[in-house]
Amino acid sequence: MGMKLYGLAMSTNTSRAMVCLHEKEVDFELVPVDVFSGEHKLPPFLSKNPFGLIPALEDDDLTLFESRAITAYIAEKYKETGPDLIRKNNAKESALVRVWAEVESESYDPAISPIIYEYLVAPFQGKEPDQSVIQPNIDKVKKVLDVYEQRLTTTQYLAGDSFTLADLNHIPNTHYFMNTPCASLINDRPHLKAWWIHISSRPSFRNLVHALTFGQNNSS
Amino acid sequence: MGMKLYGLAMSTNTSRAMVCLHEKEVDFELVPVDVFSGEHKLPPFLSKNPFGLIPALEDDDLTLFESRAITAYIAEKYKETGPDLIRKNNAKESALVRVWAEVESESYDPAISPIIYEYLVAPFQGKEPDQSVIQPNIDKVKKVLDVYEQRLTTTQYLAGDSFTLADLNHIPNTHYFMNTPCASLINDRPHLKAWWIHISSRPSFRNLVHALTFGQNNSS
Ligand SMILES: N[C@@H](CCC(=O)N[C@@H](CS)C(=O)NCC(=O)O)C(=O)O
Ligand SMILES: N[C@@H](CCC(=O)N[C@@H](CS)C(=O)NCC(=O)O)C(=O)O
Repeated sequence: MGMKLYGLAMSTNTSRAMVCLHEKEVDFELVPVDVFSGEHKLPPFLSKNPFGLIPALEDDDLTLFESRAITAYIAEKYKETGPDLIRKNNAKESALVRVWAEVESESYDPAISPIIYEYLVAPFQGKEPDQSVIQPNIDKVKKVLDVYEQRLTTTQYLAGDSFTLADLNHIPNTHYFMNTPCASLINDRPHLKAWWIHISSRPSFRNLVHALTFGQNNSS
Repeated sequence: MGMKLYGLAMSTNTSRAMVCLHEKEVDFELVPVDVFSGEHKLPPFLSKNPFGLIPALEDDDLTLFESRAITAYIAEKYKETGPDLIRKNNAKESALVRVWAEVESESYDPAISPIIYEYLVAPFQGKEPDQSVIQPNIDKVKKVLDVYEQRLTTTQYLAGDSFTLADLNHIPNTHYFMNTPCASLINDRPHLKAWWIHISSRPSFRNLVHALTFGQNNSS
């Protein structure tokens, strides 16, 4: 039985898992969860993720949630296929993958997600982007991006000179961020801009970018 | 050359790494960083962690930061010593370790840290605990604890029936949380309370608990 990923490609957390599955050329079925009707808060889905959030992954009798735990599981299970996303045979590089993956989940994502929400989601709910939310998060994200820019003067990717999970985990949320008026925070930092163009050009992401539709005028 | 951990034992993020080093019986030197004078924001320390936060770990020519990346590195490097904190030879259990470790870092810690700050740190700065910060975080932490309580009716520890990184990473912040008026959120959930008594009794933590002094009346 193939893997089943429960979620929606437009969700950053679901598409994070999808990019990783594509990198590893894994056959999987995307099973849509109707978050708009609240399907993820009802028992069938809650048995997959008790927090009622997408995505969840089923691989035979194993059920996982938390998108970054899912990408780590896929990278480990398919370590012989495609790029070595966890630098399996190099203890030091693999430790650095974990460092920069933690930075993404603990510092980068918590700062850019509210900005994405205010610019791309709130307007569809008839609300103006709330500058009192945006501004403090711009300050936070700048600090992270300054460190990234500096880091990327010494290495081609965040964890070293190979594309790894540390980069991959950034792709979907950064894609949306680049569709906000704050994109210049990345474009104004030359190494960071080059890194973004490079990692967002990977076929694993080009294959699904059309499905990341938040903030598009798709009123239908 | 032995490992060097830069930080302060009273900091949750430093003591997270220390608990792990103790579990694995690793010799290490704790090198104090004077955060009160801002030593962590100056170049010598910034070369270890560009974000200027403690802890940082040096192991020969490898320098790491992010406490959870440090515990994962130690658990992997010393996988043959002491408890198997990452369930190395069981792909499914090791995936579940990652799931519950993500929950700690993305949902548990961000909700309890502001509560700890308001009750144990703010008063030392002459401020009243701010209920407008505390209350929404109590709501968030309750949701997480309800899931933990349910989970712990089926397994002895978060990731399964073994003590792993997923539990270990919770120890220092939960210790401080139990010193706030919100401790009942844990004590009122019987499985969670038993889990906490159990994991906080491990010698790895008993050895250093006296150093977690925030909120103690140590005005000197
Ligand atoms: N830390 C989780 C977060 C999951 C998450 O927040 N998913 C969002 C979609 S991107 C969701 O399910 N939102 C629906 C809701 O909050 O009700 C992960 O990385 O998987
Ligand atoms: N995500 C980081 C957080 C590190 C952190 O916030 N450390 C605190 C001490 S517990 C610190 O250095 N605070 C000093 C400051 O913010 O200036 C980790 O897990 O290591």
